[in-house]
Amino acid sequence: MLQERVKNIMKEVPDFPKPGISFKDITPAMADPIVAKDIVESMVAWAKPLNPDYIVGVESRGFMFGFALAQKLGIGFIPIRKAGKLPRPVLQQSYSLEYGEAVIEIHKDDIKPGSKLIIHDDLLATGGTIKAAVSLCEALEAEVLGIHFLVELEFLNGRAQLAKGININALVSYP
Amino acid sequence: MLQERVKNIMKEVPDFPKPGISFKDITPAMADPIVAKDIVESMVAWAKPLNPDYIVGVESRGFMFGFALAQKLGIGFIPIRKAGKLPRPVLQQSYSLEYGEAVIEIHKDDIKPGSKLIIHDDLLATGGTIKAAVSLCEALEAEVLGIHFLVELEFLNGRAQLAKGININALVSYP
Repeated sequence: MLQERVKNIMKEVPDFPKPGISFKDITPAMADPIVAKDIVESMVAWAKPLNPDYIVGVESRGFMFGFALAQKLGIGFIPIRKAGKLPRPVLQQSYSLEYGEAVIEIHKDDIKPGSKLIIHDDLLATGGTIKAAVSLCEALEAEVLGIHFLVELEFLNGRAQLAKGININALVSYP
Repeated sequence: MLQERVKNIMKEVPDFPKPGISFKDITPAMADPIVAKDIVESMVAWAKPLNPDYIVGVESRGFMFGFALAQKLGIGFIPIRKAGKLPRPVLQQSYSLEYGEAVIEIHKDDIKPGSKLIIHDDLLATGGTIKAAVSLCEALEAEVLGIHFLVELEFLNGRAQLAKGININALVSYP
């Protein structure tokens, strides 16, 4: 089963980025072209019936599989980036981290009002980043059809940050 | 011609990230699935005869097309990231920026000695980042067969930073 292959190939790194956190390292799944291809195909199988106009990927670990998904679906890819990286006029959204605050941005003219989006990021943890990403898309009058994660840390209850109507899919989950 | 379509779709943003620099924004080429697909196919046509074992992508604008290229070639993708982002043991390389210094890293065990690599990044400007990326790969005893850029700013003479034997390809160039 793909879920087990992905869990087996990911490397868990204890105490990264700080003590007490066990980091799920997805890079080995990209270094293995068969696993990576099967992940992309599983994303296509979930996303295609939703019929999105664009895939939005969240910097920077959401860029690889997000762009590959968009290419496979034959639709465009739009990046959400950390503050100061996108050159044209942006909409900003700040969100809380454990210590301090972070800001993400999207190009205002990348999103057409009424467009239907799927957002991809690698990890659903406490949900702060993805909640901010959804806010950006909705503030530009797009509809977020679904959100795809490679990994969900269920014990952090990130889904509670997201509206009930959004179709959420995580490839692998840790209860 | 693809080069002209890419130049036409990219947005030039004056005075970004600072006064006097005209930024070449590649994001519109990813939002257009046909242009993006044709870019990936042009990368495949160049890279395939070199017969690489892995594609290395440089954070973060090298992640999208780099990963897509690896998938199309059926080979693995390895990220080079900014300092502090990769969780497992890394090799570091610092390089000079106009003001100060930057550090990039690669997972040590991602590179097998003797493996043949193609590195992809979006932009060849002064060449500092790509020179550091090549150093990382070569320090781990890999062979860099070629380097692919979407955009080369020829007037900054970045190629002078790179060894003559490396096959360098830029999709579009500005003299």
